[in-house]
Amino acid sequence: MRVRGAPAIGVAAAYGIVLAARGARGMSQKAFLGKLRRAGSLLTGARPTAVNLAWAVDLMLKVAQARARRKAGEISRALEGAALRLAEADRAANRAIGRLGAGLMRGRARILTHCNTGALATAGYGTALGVIRTAHRRGKLKRVWVDETRPYMQGARLTAWELKRDGIPFVLITDGMAGHFMQRGAVDAVIVGADRITALGDVANKIGTYQLARLARAHRIPFYVAAPTSTVDLAVREGAAIPIEERPAREVLWIGRRRIAPRGTPVANPAFDVTPRFLVTAIVTEAGVARPPFARTLARLVRRGFARFAGSIG
Amino acid sequence: MRVRGAPAIGVAAAYGIVLAARGARGMSQKAFLGKLRRAGSLLTGARPTAVNLAWAVDLMLKVAQARARRKAGEISRALEGAALRLAEADRAANRAIGRLGAGLMRGRARILTHCNTGALATAGYGTALGVIRTAHRRGKLKRVWVDETRPYMQGARLTAWELKRDGIPFVLITDGMAGHFMQRGAVDAVIVGADRITALGDVANKIGTYQLARLARAHRIPFYVAAPTSTVDLAVREGAAIPIEERPAREVLWIGRRRIAPRGTPVANPAFDVTPRFLVTAIVTEAGVARPPFARTLARLVRRGFARFAGSIG
Repeated sequence: MRVRGAPAIGVAAAYGIVLAARGARGMSQKAFLGKLRRAGSLLTGARPTAVNLAWAVDLMLKVAQARARRKAGEISRALEGAALRLAEADRAANRAIGRLGAGLMRGRARILTHCNTGALATAGYGTALGVIRTAHRRGKLKRVWVDETRPYMQGARLTAWELKRDGIPFVLITDGMAGHFMQRGAVDAVIVGADRITALGDVANKIGTYQLARLARAHRIPFYVAAPTSTVDLAVREGAAIPIEERPAREVLWIGRRRIAPRGTPVANPAFDVTPRFLVTAIVTEAGVARPPFARTLARLVRRGFARFAGSIG
Repeated sequence: MRVRGAPAIGVAAAYGIVLAARGARGMSQKAFLGKLRRAGSLLTGARPTAVNLAWAVDLMLKVAQARARRKAGEISRALEGAALRLAEADRAANRAIGRLGAGLMRGRARILTHCNTGALATAGYGTALGVIRTAHRRGKLKRVWVDETRPYMQGARLTAWELKRDGIPFVLITDGMAGHFMQRGAVDAVIVGADRITALGDVANKIGTYQLARLARAHRIPFYVAAPTSTVDLAVREGAAIPIEERPAREVLWIGRRRIAPRGTPVANPAFDVTPRFLVTAIVTEAGVARPPFARTLARLVRRGFARFAGSIG
């Protein structure tokens, strides 16, 4: 959890491969490539849900493989360049997501968001928070409702920090208040990020997202997902096939050094949930806005998006 | 917040009047009754949402008024007796709620609950938690899902403690996980308490309740409210007329001595929300189970319930 947020995890993994390469420059070619693959497996195994991790590792290994006959030092420099371009491309993708997403907002919107999807979750600017940033700059934002996002408090700890720093008006709420403010007519749109989007448009994201989507639907509020095309996993059709990471009980039971429940309390701590496609109004990627049925629209965007660009780095 | 839970607040207020009476036994009759009325206003003003508070204070003042010509010492003893009977009646009401509510459970139920409605929220046994206790004793409970109930963590701190002590199987979850476990088919019923129920059946209860009711409806899960008839306020027709207490920002921003959001973070902290009657499957009182349309059924139950019994104390 030193690095979190699907796009940031992807970029960090790319640099992880760079570090592995740097540490192995003296090796034979075969040993060098073997070491990169082992580093890749290790990195990919660290978090199962966000697909950006496996995607970035694959990309980096392809960069190395394409130069399999070059010297280790040369491959190492190529990997450094690829990681740099990956980070740059992620920032550019976020800016594009911001523009496209802000274009969806009507009037001065009161936008509810969950978890952290900002500069602290990406290579910079942010996905859902990128949309909020651009909407704010264009005078299309009235206020952000920030879900604190238990158990890890990414909303309270990270999103609140980013918004405050940028002077964007926001109000922090607990996760149980979202429905109440929707009921009161105080939420115009919900926008969240994603850890993995399937070919059909099901969305794995931070636990709590699914019920927000349900509540948005019940109140006829649009529910938007903002993510680069690198988050779309065309190899997985339905959300049920996405592995959901179960995290340690202590994330729920402890806040800092304070235990908040009796000793020995049994806990569930799924880190993510899956929002079925029928609850998603639109998916905002850097290559365009996908509307249902996502099966067609997503594949098209992936073909022309960041995912394709990044593939061409190799 | 030293005393919380609508029925416990009511009983504590009754004893508050007893203490005021004890401290004023030397006064003239007129001064004595005046002092009781002032103590009553002070107590009633402490929390606006739960109606049990005003209800218990009214009841105690009627007990005093009915003896307006007796000596202060005699009134004082009458008030002590009334407060004792009130507490006993609340425990008896909870046992009855437990029996009636447990009768609604089919098979070995997995019940989700919110906040704390147990012995720590009442004079003993509990309302929604009373139903859970009786269901457990009758072998009709498989597991309790306990919402931690931010910001004050009554689920994690109190409900978990009561269930653990009674050996009732439970799992603690964060408030954002409820929808996820409903989606997975792991919740058979939701049961909560109430701070005020209107004549038409709208329910004010701990913040987060409304969205649970919405989610239960979306997943076709029954949503039960368990409360003594003293919680029914026939003087208020619709939920929109119930005052919602806004509590201090620090309850959201601090956990113990740890601040969980940046300095100066703006916060909303409504302590309660209102669940509209159309989302409520049934209201379990000590006098019977009310089904929609609640306008008729609730009034009938109040006439034969605890509210009437308590009225007869005076």
